[in-house]
Amino acid sequence: MENFSFVNPVKIIFGKDTIQSLSKEIPAGSKVLITYGGGSIKRNGVYDQVVKALADFEWNEFSGIEANPHYETCMKAVQLIKEKNINYVLAVGGGSVIDATKFIVAAACFDGDDPWDILSKQATIKDALPFGTVLTISATGSEMNGGAVITKAETHDKLSFGSSKTYPKFSILDPEVTYSLPMKQVSNGVVDAFVHVVEQYVTYPVNAMIQDKFAEAILVTLITEGPKALETPENYDIRANLMWASTWALNGWIGCGVPEDWATHGIGHELTALYGLDHAQTLAIVLPGVLTVLKEQKAEKIIQFGEMVFGIYNNMSKEERINETINAVVNFFEEMQVKTRLSDYGLGQEAVNAVSNRIKERGWKLGEKENITADTVRQILTLRL
Amino acid sequence: MENFSFVNPVKIIFGKDTIQSLSKEIPAGSKVLITYGGGSIKRNGVYDQVVKALADFEWNEFSGIEANPHYETCMKAVQLIKEKNINYVLAVGGGSVIDATKFIVAAACFDGDDPWDILSKQATIKDALPFGTVLTISATGSEMNGGAVITKAETHDKLSFGSSKTYPKFSILDPEVTYSLPMKQVSNGVVDAFVHVVEQYVTYPVNAMIQDKFAEAILVTLITEGPKALETPENYDIRANLMWASTWALNGWIGCGVPEDWATHGIGHELTALYGLDHAQTLAIVLPGVLTVLKEQKAEKIIQFGEMVFGIYNNMSKEERINETINAVVNFFEEMQVKTRLSDYGLGQEAVNAVSNRIKERGWKLGEKENITADTVRQILTLRL
Repeated sequence: MENFSFVNPVKIIFGKDTIQSLSKEIPAGSKVLITYGGGSIKRNGVYDQVVKALADFEWNEFSGIEANPHYETCMKAVQLIKEKNINYVLAVGGGSVIDATKFIVAAACFDGDDPWDILSKQATIKDALPFGTVLTISATGSEMNGGAVITKAETHDKLSFGSSKTYPKFSILDPEVTYSLPMKQVSNGVVDAFVHVVEQYVTYPVNAMIQDKFAEAILVTLITEGPKALETPENYDIRANLMWASTWALNGWIGCGVPEDWATHGIGHELTALYGLDHAQTLAIVLPGVLTVLKEQKAEKIIQFGEMVFGIYNNMSKEERINETINAVVNFFEEMQVKTRLSDYGLGQEAVNAVSNRIKERGWKLGEKENITADTVRQILTLRL
Repeated sequence: MENFSFVNPVKIIFGKDTIQSLSKEIPAGSKVLITYGGGSIKRNGVYDQVVKALADFEWNEFSGIEANPHYETCMKAVQLIKEKNINYVLAVGGGSVIDATKFIVAAACFDGDDPWDILSKQATIKDALPFGTVLTISATGSEMNGGAVITKAETHDKLSFGSSKTYPKFSILDPEVTYSLPMKQVSNGVVDAFVHVVEQYVTYPVNAMIQDKFAEAILVTLITEGPKALETPENYDIRANLMWASTWALNGWIGCGVPEDWATHGIGHELTALYGLDHAQTLAIVLPGVLTVLKEQKAEKIIQFGEMVFGIYNNMSKEERINETINAVVNFFEEMQVKTRLSDYGLGQEAVNAVSNRIKERGWKLGEKENITADTVRQILTLRL
């Protein structure tokens, strides 16, 4: 196990009918801004529950945060915060709304020239407004970490930042609010959480038993409960297990003391930024390519992954076990109704070229060994045509 | 899954040569009290590392905290804190030193008549001094929770308390400092951690997949690495896995949203208070009795426990699988060189009578269904003669 230092200070309030409890979590007298996306929280009753819980607070709202949230949108919220002297933010939504809110609370307190530096130059976040979340989609884990991904629409830059100042103070996870999600969002959420775990698990072994077994626990939960959620949308236990699994996939604990990859995310973000694919769609395309091209470097962990998660451990050779495991990943994504090839989304060689050129421009070397260059990305994506 | 609300705010600093980092965790200008037990930290070099790291601080020390720490000892430390205007405490030791320190920091700020009320009346802890820990024994998990168990020597009362105010600010976990532990403490630590997990796992099913699988992950790690630590004391990976497993056994996360038992601890504490047995020895005696007497109530989870942790899933009947699982628990404790019967410690019927009478006096009803009365305790202990 490698050395590490970590704390996750997010209070989790989990279960049925828990939204009302947010009134006890926000300090009395706070001037609150509710941030949210489109109108879905108005249709499914979450908005009404939140407004009722905020009866004793002065509050405003900022809606219209898009998927893969835009820097430009966030800056409008920052302006509103300054105009209204807001001092507490409540994000109501999925990963996009929560990610946007993290950037908003940091940008509202940013003392440099340009808040975009938080993303482009990894400028230090010295302070941020406090915020809580009401989670409506199980997927990104943003509800229990300090990281976010923001896109500048103007330049198609999709970049991430993370800070100890941008952890939510609390997150409310009521699995019932996910019943009404479109199936596509359920599918995407399961795939996203699955790939989060793989990025922290399928690297090289460092004999970290707790981290490995926790990763396997989350992956098994996702492959067991994910398909059931598509068949039986209104089952509390299934939704609760998926919600809790997704949170654990990226709350930081399984990544402590182990190598991490994140190449699939790095490459996937470019596909979203350039072509507008859903985040999970990009992960489903890229991950099988990363595992295939890096199969020697990752051999031991791919074999462990196959055995512990998919039950692949019979008399096959190591090579066959690796290939079977990668096939099992592809089959799981397809079972979750997320397509796994560029051509499934109408993309071809031009996408391979464009993404590998962007990686080249940035000079990125990705993966746990920092050996995935623009050329490797080209190989990876060519396999996924 | 049941509803829950939880946060664990402890910062973990894990790995080789990490003790030096404590100087960055304690606020500059703090007046520090180091609390510790006997002289082992002076023999194994931990004391020297701590003193070196505290070079820039004004500090005092309080030693002599015993196993199953005494209220009377803790109150002497409280007096010292007041005399010296201490405002930060650093616990250097295992669960006993850390538990004592939690009580000390709470008692130092207690505004009632008698700090013993914190234990006897569960009086609210409104404030406590901040403290950090340097862990020297993997066992209790006290380094990452807000609970403690304290004994009043005068009356043989061994009672527990817990508060959000008594979480360590940070805990430093360097597996190398455990190399020099006597084997008995390694054995006890593994058994203690094992039973912590079982108390939160072997109850009744509520379809909480993440919690169950995390519990199984910790248990498998303990049964895999525990015996190895006895054979090969100076192996970093083994000690690191055991240390991290022990912390996770009682940092609260696996108990979120599931029923909890804690009868084995309740009964075991009485055996320690009355006869001075090591905490882990009492658990090794009591747990097999609890599982046997409660085998119908716990049937589903005992079968799951047997299958997922001990690999017991062949063509046996349910009854046989339950019995085999309980046998496997006993065998594991014995393999860890912790004896499992009252008679192994020279105790007999008088201990059965004395403990069940104490449970009766207190009017306790223990276990996840609160149905373990004094009579049930008598049955449990009679099986363990």
